[in-house]
Amino acid sequence: MTNQITTTWLGEMKFESTNPSGQKLFIDAGEEHGGKSDGYRPKALMLSSLAGCSGLDVASLIKKMKLDVSDFKIDIDAELTEEHPKYYNKVAMHFHFYGNKLNENKLQKAVDLSIEKYCGVMEMFRQFAELKIETHFHKKE
Amino acid sequence: MTNQITTTWLGEMKFESTNPSGQKLFIDAGEEHGGKSDGYRPKALMLSSLAGCSGLDVASLIKKMKLDVSDFKIDIDAELTEEHPKYYNKVAMHFHFYGNKLNENKLQKAVDLSIEKYCGVMEMFRQFAELKIETHFHKKE
Repeated sequence: MTNQITTTWLGEMKFESTNPSGQKLFIDAGEEHGGKSDGYRPKALMLSSLAGCSGLDVASLIKKMKLDVSDFKIDIDAELTEEHPKYYNKVAMHFHFYGNKLNENKLQKAVDLSIEKYCGVMEMFRQFAELKIETHFHKKE
Repeated sequence: MTNQITTTWLGEMKFESTNPSGQKLFIDAGEEHGGKSDGYRPKALMLSSLAGCSGLDVASLIKKMKLDVSDFKIDIDAELTEEHPKYYNKVAMHFHFYGNKLNENKLQKAVDLSIEKYCGVMEMFRQFAELKIETHFHKKE
């Protein structure tokens, strides 16, 4: 399978990029780099890609395993190297589950299946970053 | 430097993800995977990240070198492995410059500087994918 995208310069530091969903997205630099912040910072899109890829796995498993989860979020803290080219060398990913009937074992299993088996973006991150992954469970009425 | 994002489940296969620009983005699966296509496909965001990162380098160098360019776009074709976890193993990136006064040597230099020195996302892609990068110049009045 192939993914194809086109990214078009709109002048200054702004770009428009396609996505297989059919929706376009804008990219721009911040004011400190000559942009107008009128679009996403590109490097952080890597992190949304990682969270989205793994999040979709887990959401799919929550449905398949009929798990009771009120809320669910993923926080990512990613450290960039100081020298050019600046890449993510340390990535901490925190899965937070909220609910009053959380099946912690099954949710942990869903996270593990994504991390170890399904999430291709995670597999790519493993090639350049040291990954720390933690799962947190929160009681919520 | 650290990049931090939060990605929140909105139910079904939809997520909302933050970006350091302050703008949020939505992620969703396609209908064939239980989603409603009401957001970006996460894996393709990796490619927008790559094009955006390198595109910003080149846009910045076009300005710094005072180059005359009418249009500029980056096409990416990325092949995914067939087995889980599916990652990009072959990535072809085509830089297209349009104009009637293109300084081909300097534009090639700008692309090379991004690829070899500045673009951190490119550095990350090098760790898992075979990269093919081509520059194309098109006359345009």
